Amino acid sequence: MIVVIPVTRPRWMRLPILAVGAAMLFLSIMHSSSNEGMWLYNEPPVKRLKDLHGFDADARWLEHIQKSSVRFNSGGSGSFVSEDGLIISNHHVGSDDLQKLSDPTHNLLRDGFHARTRAEEKRCLDLELNVLMSIEDVTARVNAAVKPGMASEAAFLARRSITASIEKESLEKTGLRSDVVPLHQGGAYHLYRYKRYTDVRLVFAPEQQIAFFGGDPDNFEYPRFNLDICLFRAYENGKPARVEHYLKWSTTGVRDGDLVFVSGHPGRTYRQLTMDELGYLRDWNFPYMLSRLYRQEVVLTAWSARSDENARRARDLLYGIQNSRKARVGMQAGLLDPELVEGKRDAEKRLRAAVAADPGLALPETVGAWDAIAAAQKIIASNALAYLQLEGGHGFDSTLFGIARRLVRAADEKGKPNGGRLPEYRDSNRESLELELFSEEPIHDDLETLRLTESLSSLAENLGSPNPIVQKVLAGKSPRARAGELITGTKLKDVALRKKLYAASPAEVEAAGDPLIELARLVDAESRRLRHMVEEQEEVKRQAHAKIAAARFKVEHGSTYPDATFTLRLAYGIVSGYEEDGHKIPFQTTYAGLYERAAEHHEVPPFDLHPRWMERKSRLDLATPFNFVCTADIIGGNSGSPVVNRAGEFVGIIFDGNIQSLVLDFVYTEKQARAVSVNCQSILEALNKVYDAPEVAAELVSGRLAGEVEKR
Amino acid sequence: MIVVIPVTRPRWMRLPILAVGAAMLFLSIMHSSSNEGMWLYNEPPVKRLKDLHGFDADARWLEHIQKSSVRFNSGGSGSFVSEDGLIISNHHVGSDDLQKLSDPTHNLLRDGFHARTRAEEKRCLDLELNVLMSIEDVTARVNAAVKPGMASEAAFLARRSITASIEKESLEKTGLRSDVVPLHQGGAYHLYRYKRYTDVRLVFAPEQQIAFFGGDPDNFEYPRFNLDICLFRAYENGKPARVEHYLKWSTTGVRDGDLVFVSGHPGRTYRQLTMDELGYLRDWNFPYMLSRLYRQEVVLTAWSARSDENARRARDLLYGIQNSRKARVGMQAGLLDPELVEGKRDAEKRLRAAVAADPGLALPETVGAWDAIAAAQKIIASNALAYLQLEGGHGFDSTLFGIARRLVRAADEKGKPNGGRLPEYRDSNRESLELELFSEEPIHDDLETLRLTESLSSLAENLGSPNPIVQKVLAGKSPRARAGELITGTKLKDVALRKKLYAASPAEVEAAGDPLIELARLVDAESRRLRHMVEEQEEVKRQAHAKIAAARFKVEHGSTYPDATFTLRLAYGIVSGYEEDGHKIPFQTTYAGLYERAAEHHEVPPFDLHPRWMERKSRLDLATPFNFVCTADIIGGNSGSPVVNRAGEFVGIIFDGNIQSLVLDFVYTEKQARAVSVNCQSILEALNKVYDAPEVAAELVSGRLAGEVEKR
Repeated sequence: MIVVIPVTRPRWMRLPILAVGAAMLFLSIMHSSSNEGMWLYNEPPVKRLKDLHGFDADARWLEHIQKSSVRFNSGGSGSFVSEDGLIISNHHVGSDDLQKLSDPTHNLLRDGFHARTRAEEKRCLDLELNVLMSIEDVTARVNAAVKPGMASEAAFLARRSITASIEKESLEKTGLRSDVVPLHQGGAYHLYRYKRYTDVRLVFAPEQQIAFFGGDPDNFEYPRFNLDICLFRAYENGKPARVEHYLKWSTTGVRDGDLVFVSGHPGRTYRQLTMDELGYLRDWNFPYMLSRLYRQEVVLTAWSARSDENARRARDLLYGIQNSRKARVGMQAGLLDPELVEGKRDAEKRLRAAVAADPGLALPETVGAWDAIAAAQKIIASNALAYLQLEGGHGFDSTLFGIARRLVRAADEKGKPNGGRLPEYRDSNRESLELELFSEEPIHDDLETLRLTESLSSLAENLGSPNPIVQKVLAGKSPRARAGELITGTKLKDVALRKKLYAASPAEVEAAGDPLIELARLVDAESRRLRHMVEEQEEVKRQAHAKIAAARFKVEHGSTYPDATFTLRLAYGIVSGYEEDGHKIPFQTTYAGLYERAAEHHEVPPFDLHPRWMERKSRLDLATPFNFVCTADIIGGNSGSPVVNRAGEFVGIIFDGNIQSLVLDFVYTEKQARAVSVNCQSILEALNKVYDAPEVAAELVSGRLAGEVEKR
Repeated sequence: MIVVIPVTRPRWMRLPILAVGAAMLFLSIMHSSSNEGMWLYNEPPVKRLKDLHGFDADARWLEHIQKSSVRFNSGGSGSFVSEDGLIISNHHVGSDDLQKLSDPTHNLLRDGFHARTRAEEKRCLDLELNVLMSIEDVTARVNAAVKPGMASEAAFLARRSITASIEKESLEKTGLRSDVVPLHQGGAYHLYRYKRYTDVRLVFAPEQQIAFFGGDPDNFEYPRFNLDICLFRAYENGKPARVEHYLKWSTTGVRDGDLVFVSGHPGRTYRQLTMDELGYLRDWNFPYMLSRLYRQEVVLTAWSARSDENARRARDLLYGIQNSRKARVGMQAGLLDPELVEGKRDAEKRLRAAVAADPGLALPETVGAWDAIAAAQKIIASNALAYLQLEGGHGFDSTLFGIARRLVRAADEKGKPNGGRLPEYRDSNRESLELELFSEEPIHDDLETLRLTESLSSLAENLGSPNPIVQKVLAGKSPRARAGELITGTKLKDVALRKKLYAASPAEVEAAGDPLIELARLVDAESRRLRHMVEEQEEVKRQAHAKIAAARFKVEHGSTYPDATFTLRLAYGIVSGYEEDGHKIPFQTTYAGLYERAAEHHEVPPFDLHPRWMERKSRLDLATPFNFVCTADIIGGNSGSPVVNRAGEFVGIIFDGNIQSLVLDFVYTEKQARAVSVNCQSILEALNKVYDAPEVAAELVSGRLAGEVEKR
């Protein structure tokens, strides 16, 4: 399963990959014959599609796909598949909700769920969905606020302030969630307006065995046999949302060589990083992040093995960690591959030479842009460890600490003008923040204590025990003892108390005397100082990248797309197998292959099947296509994206990339890299013959919920 | 299972914990009422045993226990339990041999082994056992060779040279393996002479399920239910060795409050480290080593999950890694516990104050000893990463690389005088080196490639990709590609070739053109340089520690024992439960408890039992004592040590410490820390009623192998 990317508030365990020196969003080098690209819906690759594939992507077709696409703010993609608000995404996108809806006697994440009637649909605790309604280019307005010659700090603040104003104004005018998205890093700023759905109910999930068949060993591998789906329904005013745009279900699926489209929310790519930035990732950030993931994986695996209930509590967290680990290992392998790195180095050299040779480009800010980035990156790198431990929360890995920090900051920030606040506390983000802050998600003291113990230990190890802030945080106790007293002492599991403190003044929050709030306050000044310092250097990089982007645009011509930003993009590609170690890997698998793979592993976990799959094997058409691959340009965050055909029909759902696709973070290649999808036909077959869910299958095929039309 | 400690050559995956700034071996602060101590057999705690427990440890009693004790050079302890050379140790000590004797169709490590006749006993591939025959104090002779005022390098070389001479002379005179062991770090040098057994055959091992019941979750925990045993037989001249000293098997076991003795080979303790040395461990070494272990564990676990055969190949390696990880986590938790650290700090302060106040002690070398250690430790610390990557082999984690390096160095070293060689290439170690170098142990290309890929990646990450040595090692390829070509290209799996190259000149070794030999040669100069530099600083520390040790001896009076050195020690303690979180933990468990624990976990691995244990449950006396705890002072390396009663009878076998015992590396405590043993009675019960091995049980009870007496 590809990485899920959170958008509103980072969960502590799912921080963005770069975290320091964040998204670099630039123009890419395009090969004219390639299916490369994560295209903006307001700058679609119409000409390329026409030239390469003879396909006319007209405005109606584009609008239909756009408005059928759904963003999961918990970190993935999905799409409407009935006019009554039915939405399909991945099981591993829904896993956060399945985990939160579980308790010791109902393990929805492991066992699945099926609402046989509408009344049985279960409301998710804090899930927010976004549907993109419009995009507006506000580059001129943003740039007008940032005067030439401003120091980087002033430029940063001016940009933050104008962005907040635009968002607030749009929210007030349209009632839509409004986010200003930096694209091409300062090359452009677009205002994205979303319809929000916060009453989202769980309709159907298969058991995890089949959703994640093959587990970690088969993750990011191909051939695959996963029914990685989860169905939700959006509600409005207590009734199923009636939507104008949804994808019609294909009953014919895909054939080898078909042109297909992927509409989803790729989270982050690093295709435009300079060599110095890549060096930072390879030599510091990835090793650090991997070492953290390895530790978390071992600790949670060992703890999970101690009891079934432990395993249940840690399940979603652990799968997320394993998934990130496997993805990053692949990305780091890319950065350690001289072929990839030399390619990048050559491209950078060529561009720098072209700039130097062109009198119109060879201005000092452009010629010096790479060095400016290197210098800023160096400052960031030298502070990255402290930044990640404190501001990144790596030293305080606990859901309750996250809540404590947000309460402390919400109280401090609300006294400031909207434009001067940290972005996550702006008016335009208020509803999303509250949805998460007031979530009734179950929080387990033992798991919280375990995570906090580990992260306090890592804080001490990373910053050194004698470090004054470490001393203050540990307060003369061992990490284990300190974590224990913090989690035992805090009252923040109580949502009513959170609501009270969220409405309170800074003094009242302080007076609450909650030990986790005191801890959050204790580190807040240093944490904010580090964030400010990093953000200032990112502003330096942003301005330098803008120069490089402009130069590249001039040197390379041609149509372009920005690096991924967890906003809606259109990718396209060909359904196609590939060669690996001299073997031809076919483009699709079947249900027959599923049973063969399970038998090969003696049905031992994670290659085991639920008894219902064994009992009902004879009913199934074993020739049904199960999973397939295509060359579309995807990345983490695309999880759950619909795959559609020329007619705009739903033919499959993205759930993974193969191991060769992990370099797509840095460079597109269609030699072996493939996106992996569940075929639409296998979904119907499973719903009808394995899960006794004909009514769900019928809604997918008809595009409407039986009984709803009559009621309207 | 406590950590096993290799003695001859460190296996790459089982390097000693300190690795840089090695064993600090000093006098300890003794509380008169305590059962502290890992005592030398030539300086036994006779008076303490008399005073505390009214026990007379006379010379005959001591000699009998000493010569019944066996050292496993693969990293553990054991004892003779019949006059026909039968030896008992732990399953997890024998696991190295069980792994090497397995193949895809015979998984001895997982399934166990039972030689029903002598003819079926299986010869181990490279196991060497040592029995301590005598100890001679050679301190005066060593010190005479190291002149006062010598620079640390000269002192180091002079010490190395005299040590080599003493060992060689002793070997030639007695034919016994002869090792000069530094004790109290320069406070004393003792010559240990061992009888060697290299024809060692496997007699019996239970399946791993019961030997390691509860797996990683229950490892280092108590109560426990493990049949962690493995039986071997020593042979001489193709016949069972006839031994004068062996332990009589007790049929009555232990009672609460019994005085018991543990005779074994504690590997390494850190009780006499200075605060600066502890700081290095806590702030750098342990975090680094843990991060390496976490990575290895995740990588091997993921790889093992891909197929049964992978799991079989990686099994012993993986268990060793998990075990080290859990041990180190506990040790690091100790170092992050202010109570422990403050206790250490106070003791150091008190000793320094006492030194300063005593005119007879307050000499500049003694007063300045702590600062001298701090300065040397700082130099070591700043080179530790490179040292561990290159000389420690962390960058080349592969059995075949280890062989390549030994061949390269053997060729270079043999041209030098014996006293000038690296210790592992001295004449006195030749047989042990050859036993390991010419082992027929199975080596799997896929596992080698996996390990080498990971470690080459870690080399690049730790030293930085631009580092010239990294560039040379990777030769312009990715770690994966480079590891693949090295393992595919080497011919060193061929033992005959190894023998040929071992006999060859440096030029001939070079001319062999083997890619792994070329790699070993490529890094050898830098690797040796780092080793030399570290050893020089260790000499500085050694001399400073000798001053501190002498001062402590004067200040504290009383009898003393040195830090552990993987040489034979006698510990003693009381069979006794303890309190944990307000609960009383009883001193022993029973077979009834085993079945309860398995049921509690629904017999899901690692809490599952082999069918034979389920089928034969009704035959067993469920009240049979299974595991028990005592307060004896043990540490990794003690695995397999016999527990004996006042009569010198075998009452149990050490296999673990509880979680509270992990701080014993730094300080002895008997409040909660306990050694965990298998009770002698449960072993007989299992052999007779579960394994149909009455002939093995009979040999244990009678002390002789039926049929052997007649043949003599």
